[in-house]
Amino acid sequence: MITLLTDFGTADYFVPAVKGVILSIHPTVQIIDLTHEIPAQDITAGAFTLGACYQNFPAGTIHLAVVDPGVGSARRAIVVRAGNQLFVGPDNGIFSYVYARESQVHVFQLERDEYFRHPVSATFHGRDVFAPVAAWLSRGLQPEAVGREIQDYIGIEIPQPLNDADGNRVIGSILHIDRFGNCITNLTERELRIEQSGIRNPESAIKLLFAGREIGQFGSHFAQSAVKGEPFAYLGSAGFWEIALWCDSAANRLGARRGTEVILEFQ
Amino acid sequence: MITLLTDFGTADYFVPAVKGVILSIHPTVQIIDLTHEIPAQDITAGAFTLGACYQNFPAGTIHLAVVDPGVGSARRAIVVRAGNQLFVGPDNGIFSYVYARESQVHVFQLERDEYFRHPVSATFHGRDVFAPVAAWLSRGLQPEAVGREIQDYIGIEIPQPLNDADGNRVIGSILHIDRFGNCITNLTERELRIEQSGIRNPESAIKLLFAGREIGQFGSHFAQSAVKGEPFAYLGSAGFWEIALWCDSAANRLGARRGTEVILEFQ
Amino acid sequence: MITLLTDFGTADYFVPAVKGVILSIHPTVQIIDLTHEIPAQDITAGAFTLGACYQNFPAGTIHLAVVDPGVGSARRAIVVRAGNQLFVGPDNGIFSYVYARESQVHVFQLERDEYFRHPVSATFHGRDVFAPVAAWLSRGLQPEAVGREIQDYIGIEIPQPLNDADGNRVIGSILHIDRFGNCITNLTERELRIEQSGIRNPESAIKLLFAGREIGQFGSHFAQSAVKGEPFAYLGSAGFWEIALWCDSAANRLGARRGTEVILEFQ
Repeated sequence: MITLLTDFGTADYFVPAVKGVILSIHPTVQIIDLTHEIPAQDITAGAFTLGACYQNFPAGTIHLAVVDPGVGSARRAIVVRAGNQLFVGPDNGIFSYVYARESQVHVFQLERDEYFRHPVSATFHGRDVFAPVAAWLSRGLQPEAVGREIQDYIGIEIPQPLNDADGNRVIGSILHIDRFGNCITNLTERELRIEQSGIRNPESAIKLLFAGREIGQFGSHFAQSAVKGEPFAYLGSAGFWEIALWCDSAANRLGARRGTEVILEFQ
Repeated sequence: MITLLTDFGTADYFVPAVKGVILSIHPTVQIIDLTHEIPAQDITAGAFTLGACYQNFPAGTIHLAVVDPGVGSARRAIVVRAGNQLFVGPDNGIFSYVYARESQVHVFQLERDEYFRHPVSATFHGRDVFAPVAAWLSRGLQPEAVGREIQDYIGIEIPQPLNDADGNRVIGSILHIDRFGNCITNLTERELRIEQSGIRNPESAIKLLFAGREIGQFGSHFAQSAVKGEPFAYLGSAGFWEIALWCDSAANRLGARRGTEVILEFQ
Repeated sequence: MITLLTDFGTADYFVPAVKGVILSIHPTVQIIDLTHEIPAQDITAGAFTLGACYQNFPAGTIHLAVVDPGVGSARRAIVVRAGNQLFVGPDNGIFSYVYARESQVHVFQLERDEYFRHPVSATFHGRDVFAPVAAWLSRGLQPEAVGREIQDYIGIEIPQPLNDADGNRVIGSILHIDRFGNCITNLTERELRIEQSGIRNPESAIKLLFAGREIGQFGSHFAQSAVKGEPFAYLGSAGFWEIALWCDSAANRLGARRGTEVILEFQ
């Protein structure tokens, strides 16, 4: 099974060219689209989206991820073995959530060009390098066979929530904004756990400050929290607290973007 | 074979998470996307779209439909057996066209949580409840095994054309507006049959009134009817008369929306 | 293996209806989406996109292409055998790049309606004619069995670069504009080859004139050529020179569209 995550969009010949190359090498492999709508060249968004779903796939899955602004330059191409899965793509941080979550990570640089499609174009390594390598891996090729293991692979920093000195504030930030404009923070149940039943954490009064205002409502799910026109927080399905507006874009309304600070105050 | 119909869009991790969970339980099942672009939380649009294509799929197909504004609340989760197919989703009317068309309908409430993914999140039952149940059904699990049969499942009303008292008018309405802005009415060949050859029903002079004007042209297909800038009616492929504008949105131009009245006058 | 290329979009029931019909006839066939976002009724764009990727698929692939403004009229339906693959669709030029590239082309008119879905609607031959025929072909039906071979099938002209009389100018044009606004010309390596290393062809000073201005930068790939705000040319992955703007639409900025002239001057 090979999954695809790209910023190619689905209107042009890019995605089918990748699929055709894979199927020419391995006609019976199952190809699953993760998404092709990562914003153009946005490695951080690609890394988040891959990070939020790769663990739902079975052992042995091969994830092909191509958000590749450096295509044609000297950036390396890699295969990663981690969490009983394989990952193929450019060495630019696209696998950062995998590196952060998996205890056993091995990264191999793609060097053996007999597994590439020739001639290798300068602009479309998704088709000419990553697709054929993924297809050969799905037929049993071992990552060790494509090139040597490297240690200096590139990761992008994933911001972690910080506790302030006196212990009554946690400073987090927005990791990702989804297509609905929901703002996904880096706060998890570790920072803020709320009871199944309740609107508020019964153990302490808390405040959630975001984009210059207090988020007044929060609960364990949408239906529990949603008041029209009022931003609310809920524990999202990727394991992070999210800030949303009912039928509206919280990011647009609140002027938030990736990196915007979120403050949790315990009183 | 499992099909997916959702309002998740294809930009985020939601759809691949659903697919990953299914494939982790049943790695060789074929997954077919119906669409993920149902307008957010629009159960009526989801019900129409599913209704317009589920019968094209073979017996034994499992349709997973998740347009679920009530996720996390007390709304029930169900499996439906009807027309030699299975349907999995929330009990909110998303299967109303199936209920209306199939003579044998059995609805089972999802209660046996050993078939769910754990922990069950409060916001993403598509991944945690519906996907694993669909996957187990595709491996042979019987609907009876997931919970007890219920009779009080929820249907949304599908408006039917009405004949007025003196028999020379039929009052219909718009069921759905597609992404091109074509307006799909609830009038079928039963209300208005036109000859293969002809522009007009030879048996009677008829008028089609819609959004405050008379639709002047109608035929059995696009090419026959289309006059630039002039709204026209044709018998659409879902079996309903549709009102369209050549290369334009009839809905926008005529100010029509779901529920807008359509009047057929025989003179 | 059956691929699909249409202008249906992915929001409505059209694509799943096609897939359902195919899978009802051949439940285990693999269906691959090329794209469903060809601009509505744009046969030329459909032809280009199919042309840019069909050769990446293995021998025996069946390509179903439906961009069909003449549906319901007298336009013919065809099956094409070329390049060890099959193509199914309307006879309106959608397969023009296949005709131009393959030496052995055989075109058969779809006449035998026992392979169609009945009743055949007047508006949706994708579902009722092309899908079932493609499915039967994937089960081993021979093109000869669907109807007689024809010679007068329709091709759209693909503009070729022209050399002017004195040999120091080549006049090309834009074949296609992709969703990023990149302008794909009909100039290939034959007209302009640049060295792996270099920014300019070392053998001659050249000028690339486009939309009233000189394109100052060109190289073998994006990263080599891109200067923010400055249009540049690079050799694209479909084998044609493309003109682009870093993170912007060259077509919009330069006022270019399909057919816009491109002039290459050697001095």
